Amino acid sequence: MSIKKLGEFGLIEEIKKRFSTFNSDTTQGIGDDCAIIPKNDEISYVITTDMLVEGKHFILDNISSFELGHKSLAVNISDVASMGATPYCSFLSFALSNEVDEQWCRGFIDGYYSLSHQYNIPLLGGDTTSANDGALTISVTAIGEVKNSNIKLRSMAKVGDIIAVTSNLGDSALALKLMLGGEECPDDLRNFHNKPNPHIKQGEWLGAQSAVNAMMDISDGVASDITHICKLSECGAKINTSVIPHSERLKEICENRQLNILDFSLAGGEDYSLLLTVSPSKFEGLKQEFDNLFKENITAIGEITESGISYINSSGKVVEQKLGFRHF
Amino acid sequence: MSIKKLGEFGLIEEIKKRFSTFNSDTTQGIGDDCAIIPKNDEISYVITTDMLVEGKHFILDNISSFELGHKSLAVNISDVASMGATPYCSFLSFALSNEVDEQWCRGFIDGYYSLSHQYNIPLLGGDTTSANDGALTISVTAIGEVKNSNIKLRSMAKVGDIIAVTSNLGDSALALKLMLGGEECPDDLRNFHNKPNPHIKQGEWLGAQSAVNAMMDISDGVASDITHICKLSECGAKINTSVIPHSERLKEICENRQLNILDFSLAGGEDYSLLLTVSPSKFEGLKQEFDNLFKENITAIGEITESGISYINSSGKVVEQKLGFRHF
Repeated sequence: MSIKKLGEFGLIEEIKKRFSTFNSDTTQGIGDDCAIIPKNDEISYVITTDMLVEGKHFILDNISSFELGHKSLAVNISDVASMGATPYCSFLSFALSNEVDEQWCRGFIDGYYSLSHQYNIPLLGGDTTSANDGALTISVTAIGEVKNSNIKLRSMAKVGDIIAVTSNLGDSALALKLMLGGEECPDDLRNFHNKPNPHIKQGEWLGAQSAVNAMMDISDGVASDITHICKLSECGAKINTSVIPHSERLKEICENRQLNILDFSLAGGEDYSLLLTVSPSKFEGLKQEFDNLFKENITAIGEITESGISYINSSGKVVEQKLGFRHF
Repeated sequence: MSIKKLGEFGLIEEIKKRFSTFNSDTTQGIGDDCAIIPKNDEISYVITTDMLVEGKHFILDNISSFELGHKSLAVNISDVASMGATPYCSFLSFALSNEVDEQWCRGFIDGYYSLSHQYNIPLLGGDTTSANDGALTISVTAIGEVKNSNIKLRSMAKVGDIIAVTSNLGDSALALKLMLGGEECPDDLRNFHNKPNPHIKQGEWLGAQSAVNAMMDISDGVASDITHICKLSECGAKINTSVIPHSERLKEICENRQLNILDFSLAGGEDYSLLLTVSPSKFEGLKQEFDNLFKENITAIGEITESGISYINSSGKVVEQKLGFRHF
């Protein structure tokens, strides 16, 4: 069986199975956005690591080194925020091709530094090597800190919870489509993909709200990401496709080109905002407070059910929708 | 200026400089084998990350997937041990080429698991992706735990300290040379390079000894590694090239082929044993206890001086020696 057939998730399952025999009592590992290790009786560290490969996760012609430096850290601290944690420090490794010059490296470091500085995240280590004529590869490890009582897991959703998201969805995927097609892509749209703003303060705040049950970041698209919450929480989900929040521009471009909006907003990916489930009685209060505090709104998009994942449209009819994407 | 000219260490210096403005009071970062973050008043976590690139750090024809799995973890927990810490958990990311099959992956996971199991180190997360026709790239992050009083840094060497190493040196570099030349390489010699045994228990034990001042692992070869201790401890070193410990086989092969033994034992690299500096009055006692406890001996190879790094031979004459190797 080739890796393509096994798939990324199959490979992760294989690894989980192999290591399941000696998991520690005090740590929590593979399956959530971050692993958790204890700091003291009240606080834990959360740890995540992501790898970005040239040609797979980015194309050098489409992203500046500054943007790539920003994005390499952003995708990792987005995972930290999704646990309800505050970013604490990071580690940066890269395998650089010999063609990359010093100016490119400085731009990359500036972009990485700029986001580090915004959230006061020291860089504590890493590794640099050459890619030996291979693809430029970046690996970041980010560590966050969180009160134990604030930790939000994918496994914490409850039947009846409202499923919500913290931003418009799909702009990142649309920008990617335009860039890959060699089409004009306005800077502000391009930023959604190349220089995403992870919901750091939002995640920290939502972590402290007891109304929030499960939380994760939206990296593969809601259609794919919700399956992880359902699997780990042993529940189902009903998503109302007519209320997935999207920008006016996404709607216009999709209508002009006869594209399906949901291919971007629901199955696009790389939004790096948050997907959460909320106790239904507390949703309106939480929404009001969040909307007042932050620029973007929380939007309800469905509810947690006993089992199965279904998509309904505005008339309540079940519609079909492809699910996320796979790396292999 | 190209990356080749800037060099790995130049790039790290650039990054250190850029981030020097906002280092945290409670953490210690770039420059040592591991970063340090506090756990509680008495204990810290140490964190390290290493990246291995196909064609740069390994050649698939020369190393089995089991060996590569073992080695990927070994080089990281070697850094953990060099701080006087005990490995606590690890994270594994890889970018796999589509040609790598499931059997290869299983072998890799088995090798990684086997060493994890030997030292009871749970795997708590990671990332899997395709290398997009690029080189297979592996990135491991390892975390260790250590009593604050046991932490050994590169910056802790004192003038007059005895410089010592915990194993014979050079077998790994010799094995690499034979394999790269397509020559016969006996399994037990090949193991020094492909399946190194990091000095985990030794590092843990040496961490608890107050006689030990500075410590690091030997990854680039003593000639390169000692420069880091000298730089961070603001001191010099005098190394006696006639007492660098090496195997009889290394000596024989070098003599037969008119190779310089020191090119392997002093400048070879990838030994993954420990380089340490010890208070001179306590060295003999420490050596006796260590030699009784562990299979390999501690060997004195020089002493810490005020400044400058010099190499002397058995007659005390200064000899020249090339220093380490660079990744770019």
